[in-house]
Amino acid sequence: MGRWEPGATQRLVVAAVDLFTEQGYDATTVAQIAERAGVTKSTFFRHFSDKRELLVAGQETLSRLLAEGIAEAPADASPLEAVAGGLERASTAMGPANRELGPRLKAAVAASTELQERDALKSVGLAAAMTAALVARGVPDPTAHLASELGVLAFKRGYAAWSEGDGEDGSELAEHSLAALAELRAATASLG
Amino acid sequence: MGRWEPGATQRLVVAAVDLFTEQGYDATTVAQIAERAGVTKSTFFRHFSDKRELLVAGQETLSRLLAEGIAEAPADASPLEAVAGGLERASTAMGPANRELGPRLKAAVAASTELQERDALKSVGLAAAMTAALVARGVPDPTAHLASELGVLAFKRGYAAWSEGDGEDGSELAEHSLAALAELRAATASLG
Repeated sequence: MGRWEPGATQRLVVAAVDLFTEQGYDATTVAQIAERAGVTKSTFFRHFSDKRELLVAGQETLSRLLAEGIAEAPADASPLEAVAGGLERASTAMGPANRELGPRLKAAVAASTELQERDALKSVGLAAAMTAALVARGVPDPTAHLASELGVLAFKRGYAAWSEGDGEDGSELAEHSLAALAELRAATASLG
Repeated sequence: MGRWEPGATQRLVVAAVDLFTEQGYDATTVAQIAERAGVTKSTFFRHFSDKRELLVAGQETLSRLLAEGIAEAPADASPLEAVAGGLERASTAMGPANRELGPRLKAAVAASTELQERDALKSVGLAAAMTAALVARGVPDPTAHLASELGVLAFKRGYAAWSEGDGEDGSELAEHSLAALAELRAATASLG
């Protein structure tokens, strides 16, 4: 799917994140999530294998889009230009519902070690997808690793800036993540 | 502690990592770990709160040493020079027992999503410790984040290179992690 399905998937994610924040991840059951979202437990299980899975729902889509954007960058694009292509492509999967979820998700993750672990592994997965796509373009290993770390950092910083805004400026995630990538690129000059 | 305690702590870690690899993380109990290590369960619980805790035993020490090395770098050190100081300091906590643990730990992590999550969060924690130490030196935010990501990547790449060797060359972890940092620094020039 490109964007989150506007129906049950989206409602389940919002319900889950709110419950995780209100009462903690461990104390929240699938039954509670389904009830809050106004669906049955079997609808939950048609969308997600368990409550943890729900948190990585977007990860496969993001990984695929990041890799596609990198693969389809012009042949003469630099490693970071290819990463920028990946960030632009991945941003197309993130609409207003994802922006509004940001602060809730941040609160839920802050409250749970288990969610922090899950979130950290998600970053590792996104970086691995980008590294593989860069290596397939012939980018040598340390450069590919470094470029994908910058890409993940830019995506996270861009998402944070985007989801902290009120959305009234009509800005897209792509603008924020590309601005963050440019800022990180500029920072490489002052590493010493 | 500077190095791992040579006695029970070390034996417990080796026993746990071997059992995780042989039979999986979930199936391994504290009782089995204690038995394999030749200690009682209550000895286990004097050292670790649970089996997961055992995997982060070194993390607080590493975070502290990385931050100390950064804080004590000369006032005119560049961000990456300060990170190099952190890597050197942290490497002093890693002796031959840590080197030998490398391949076992890699096998155990490869076999378990839960250990991958724990490992990913460990990297986030080390990066956060380095970022905070760099910010305290007056390094601006995006540069501090970037420099600490390079530091984590260098530590992991250096540890992998060191622990894949047979140890007969007598090399120290510090040499490998500083070489990896220099390689990543050089790679920044080809990001484009």
